[in-house]
Amino acid sequence: MDFNVTILGYNSAVPTAHSHPTAQLVDVKGTTLLIDCGEGTQIQIRKSKTKFSKLNQIFISHLHGDHVFGLVGLISTLQLLGRNKSLEIFGPVGIKNFINHQLSLTNAYQNFELIFHELNSDVSELIFENKKLKVYTIPLRHRFYCNGFLIQEKEGLRHLNMQAILQIPEIETCDYYKIKQGFDFVRANGEVIPCAKLTFPPEPARSYAFCSDTMYHPAIVPIIENVDLLYHEATFSKALKNLAKKTGHSTAEQAAQIAKQAQVSKLIIGHFSNRYKNPQVLLDEAKEIFAETYLPKTLESISIPQKKR
Amino acid sequence: MDFNVTILGYNSAVPTAHSHPTAQLVDVKGTTLLIDCGEGTQIQIRKSKTKFSKLNQIFISHLHGDHVFGLVGLISTLQLLGRNKSLEIFGPVGIKNFINHQLSLTNAYQNFELIFHELNSDVSELIFENKKLKVYTIPLRHRFYCNGFLIQEKEGLRHLNMQAILQIPEIETCDYYKIKQGFDFVRANGEVIPCAKLTFPPEPARSYAFCSDTMYHPAIVPIIENVDLLYHEATFSKALKNLAKKTGHSTAEQAAQIAKQAQVSKLIIGHFSNRYKNPQVLLDEAKEIFAETYLPKTLESISIPQKKR
Repeated sequence: MDFNVTILGYNSAVPTAHSHPTAQLVDVKGTTLLIDCGEGTQIQIRKSKTKFSKLNQIFISHLHGDHVFGLVGLISTLQLLGRNKSLEIFGPVGIKNFINHQLSLTNAYQNFELIFHELNSDVSELIFENKKLKVYTIPLRHRFYCNGFLIQEKEGLRHLNMQAILQIPEIETCDYYKIKQGFDFVRANGEVIPCAKLTFPPEPARSYAFCSDTMYHPAIVPIIENVDLLYHEATFSKALKNLAKKTGHSTAEQAAQIAKQAQVSKLIIGHFSNRYKNPQVLLDEAKEIFAETYLPKTLESISIPQKKR
Repeated sequence: MDFNVTILGYNSAVPTAHSHPTAQLVDVKGTTLLIDCGEGTQIQIRKSKTKFSKLNQIFISHLHGDHVFGLVGLISTLQLLGRNKSLEIFGPVGIKNFINHQLSLTNAYQNFELIFHELNSDVSELIFENKKLKVYTIPLRHRFYCNGFLIQEKEGLRHLNMQAILQIPEIETCDYYKIKQGFDFVRANGEVIPCAKLTFPPEPARSYAFCSDTMYHPAIVPIIENVDLLYHEATFSKALKNLAKKTGHSTAEQAAQIAKQAQVSKLIIGHFSNRYKNPQVLLDEAKEIFAETYLPKTLESISIPQKKR
C-alpha cells in the first residue's frame, strides 16, 4: 500500500512566477492529508490531480501567510463545489478566528461543517488517528508558535505462517482474520497457541516528518527518530547562520545535522530564501553532513517504499 | 501617451489550473491601478512584468473571495520586499477590518501605511484623482454591495495654433505653457486674446469602465456612456437568465445590451461560469446585440488608442 508525499510548493515567504509557497499532500494508504496551505495551493492540488473530495484533514504549521493564505480560498472553493461532508482543520490557536472572520466578511456559503482543532501545546501530542495512520505534533521553535507534523503509518495485519497453521487442524479459514490481527488461538482442549507461532510480523510501519518553519532545534530529534523521510526547512546557508537564528530559521547544515542525529533514512530540504537562485549550494552543504539529502521538485510525489520484515 | 488595460484573470468564483480569478491592471499615462485581487493575483502581476513599486492604488469591487482573496498576500509580499511608501485601498465598508484582521493574526510586518477608503455610497462618486486621471465608482447591483469603477483620463494640454500665435508679437515662448493650459493672453494695451483663438483643443480624453459583478442594471448606463472600453461581466448565457438574476449576475446578452445603450466603443465580457468550457457561445450571443464585443485573454494588454481631435 502506498505512502506518498507530494510537494505542492516549498518556497519561502514571497511567491514568484515559478515557485509556490509551502503545501504538501501526504497520502497514506488512501488517506490524504494536506499540510500547510500557502496562496495558490488549491491550484497546485488541482495540478496534482488529487480530488478535493479526498481531503478531510488539513494541518497548518503556523499562521504566517506563506503557510496559510490559501486556506480560505480552498475552503470557499469546496463550498462552491457543493461539498457537504465536514472538514477538520488542525492549527495554532487563532486559526478558527482567522478563517471564520474571512468567511463571514466574504458572505461565504456554509454548506459543510468546519471542525477546528486549535493547538497550543509545547509538547508533542497525538492529534489525529484513523485506521491507517496517526498524526503527532512536532513542537518547533520559530518566531511564532509553530508545529511540525509526524505522520506514522499504523502496522498492518500480521502474515499467516501457513506451515504452522496447517499443523493445527481445528484452525479454519474463518479464524484467519483474528489470528492476523494478533489474537492467540485456543484449541478445543484449552491449549493456547500463541499468535507469534502462527504468524510472521507485519511489515514495519513507515513514517514521515514535516518540520517547517524552525530554527535549529535538537529537541525534536527524539520525536522524529528513525523516520523514513524528513522534510526540514533550510532557509539559509551556513554563511548566514546568525540571520537564520534571528529569523527563526535553519541553515542547510543544521537541517542535515538534525537528520543525522535522528538517523532518518532520507532528508528533503526546502523553504529556501529567494536569495538562492540555485539551491544546489544548500544541497551541497547538507550532503556534507548527511549524504541522503535531496532537493524537492514542485508536484513531485515521493514514495516511501514498503520496508522488508 | 498610453492607456492600457491588462486582464490578469477573469474567471468566476472557482479558480482552475489554467484560469485566474478577477484582477486587472489599468495603466493611464504611467499611473498603474489594480482593480480586484483574487487569489494568485500577485503572481499574475509578476507575470505581466509590472513592478510592484508602480502600484499605489488598489480598487476592490466587492468582498467576494474571487475578487479579494489575493489582497492580503499581495500586501504581505510588499511588506516583505521592504516597501515603505503608503498604499491606498478603495473598497466596500469592511475591507479594512478584513485585511487588518488577517495581517494582525499572521503577525505581519508594518513597514508602510495602508490607507483604506471604505465605500458605502449608492450613487457614483469621485474617489480618486491625480494629474492624469479620475476614478469614479459605478454602483452595481449584485448579491452583495459592489462597485464597478470608471477610469477617466484627464484632458491633456491644448495645442498651440502657431499661425495665430505669430500674429501677436508680444507672445513669447515663456507664455506658451499658460496658453496651452487654457489661459487667455492679455496684450500690453489690455486687449484679451481668447485662448480658443490661439490653440486647438487637446485630444479627447479616454475612459474605461469595469463592471463586475452585477446583474443587468441599466441604471449604470448614464455613468458609463460613451466610454472607449467597457468590461462587463457575462457569467451566464441568456438560456440561464433566471439563474443570472437570482445570483446577481448578467447574461452575455444583457452585457451587450448595456454596451449598446451606453454607446461604448468596445465591450469585453468576462467572469464566465465554469460550465462554459468554451466561451464562444457567450461571445456569439453578445455580438448579436453589440458587434464590437471581444473575449478577454489572460495577461493580454488592451490598448485604448489616442483619439483624433
